[in-house]
Amino acid sequence: MTEPLILTARDNPLLQRIRKLGQDPGAYRKLGQVWLEGDHLVGAALQRGRPLEELVFTESAWHERADWRGWVDRARRVVVVPDALMKTLSTLESPPRIGALLAVPADTALAPRAFSVVLDRLQDAGNVGSILRSAAAFGVGQVLAIKGTAALWSPKVLRAGMGAHFALQLVEGLAPEDLAGLAVPLLATSSHAGLVLGQAELPHPCAWVLGHEGRGVDEALMARCAHTVSIPQPGGEESLNVAAAAAICLFASRAPG
Amino acid sequence: MTEPLILTARDNPLLQRIRKLGQDPGAYRKLGQVWLEGDHLVGAALQRGRPLEELVFTESAWHERADWRGWVDRARRVVVVPDALMKTLSTLESPPRIGALLAVPADTALAPRAFSVVLDRLQDAGNVGSILRSAAAFGVGQVLAIKGTAALWSPKVLRAGMGAHFALQLVEGLAPEDLAGLAVPLLATSSHAGLVLGQAELPHPCAWVLGHEGRGVDEALMARCAHTVSIPQPGGEESLNVAAAAAICLFASRAPG
Repeated sequence: MTEPLILTARDNPLLQRIRKLGQDPGAYRKLGQVWLEGDHLVGAALQRGRPLEELVFTESAWHERADWRGWVDRARRVVVVPDALMKTLSTLESPPRIGALLAVPADTALAPRAFSVVLDRLQDAGNVGSILRSAAAFGVGQVLAIKGTAALWSPKVLRAGMGAHFALQLVEGLAPEDLAGLAVPLLATSSHAGLVLGQAELPHPCAWVLGHEGRGVDEALMARCAHTVSIPQPGGEESLNVAAAAAICLFASRAPG
Repeated sequence: MTEPLILTARDNPLLQRIRKLGQDPGAYRKLGQVWLEGDHLVGAALQRGRPLEELVFTESAWHERADWRGWVDRARRVVVVPDALMKTLSTLESPPRIGALLAVPADTALAPRAFSVVLDRLQDAGNVGSILRSAAAFGVGQVLAIKGTAALWSPKVLRAGMGAHFALQLVEGLAPEDLAGLAVPLLATSSHAGLVLGQAELPHPCAWVLGHEGRGVDEALMARCAHTVSIPQPGGEESLNVAAAAAICLFASRAPG
């Protein structure tokens, strides 16, 4: 079994890098890595075959016989830190007992015929994470983020995504015109006319365009949509949260299966 | 037209009360009022016929001719404060130009035959707000919160609810056994068996029981459910966010309309 590297100095460069990744939502873009906190996220990455770079245990976790002791062979390097030091690496109220550094997959090309979600400048990390979970659940292959969308691999979106990141291909920083490469019809929700969800048959695969929480889908993007789709709302509020609307739309157009 | 009360002292008791309501998520329970920030929330309350107690304008908003100047006749009292003072009342990055105090409706009795949502100790304000929006959109009549659920009228839930609060009857602090008073079948989602959403016909009206983000629906409550319902997830993640799952379920069992 790999011999762990024991780190006890608070200012060790590896630990400083981890702190930066935990605190700065966009740091992964420069550093090329993300910091996964907790056994749920680390386990989800491993389950999808993502190779870990550093796997970090607290001392007390390292000395415990737990299932995740079997994970050590899947990391390039294993690090053990005093429990008090792990606290300085975490932004959570209860710091985790395990964490890992993972190289961010550099997906840059979009898959032309995949069932897709397009995020048009969504701001809220909780919404983005919830949408990634729904996308993974309903068989979406790729999530395409238009420039201005919350950073998909930021710590908050990673937490809200609960591991969905590892089931999806994620492409960031796109311009609306990049979507010309998609060979599936684009759909957007709208309260005006168009197809009625639950009545019309929806194309599959397709790409759902989800817009900014306050301003909705950009006009230029809307013009690229083959269909607008309305969600019947007998309560008359016409004001679903974007992640709630996304869940309904993705469920309705899921892969047959 | 009502003559406005002009307040310029930072420590005026009314302004102190507003600050307390903005900062302490449970203060409304003691004070019997909520503080609505911004024209969207205030407008939503008025649209549903809720009478305002104090309507608070910034000086610059007061001197502007805007639609909401027509709202002054619907408030018991109109207050104008210097713009800088409004900033001290707000917890938002961009303080609003208008706000209002509203008496919290003291709904304590549940409606036996209403299309309902039961919140079983949900913790996240964003999730609760999103669920209230979906409930209002799909014609739910009442939302019943089991003791331990996030405070429904807290500032964060109010913001996330975007006005849905005023379209619903909200009952808080219930025990599981209080649901014995409901004459509609209780449904809960489960990955195990039960009815399959999109295939089985769902009863209407019904009451959807939504469980704690980490621990799910309490066992005693689950035992009261007439049906469990599974949401087919061809992606195989089995891990929808609770507000996303709620949106799908409420849409699927909405009132015929």
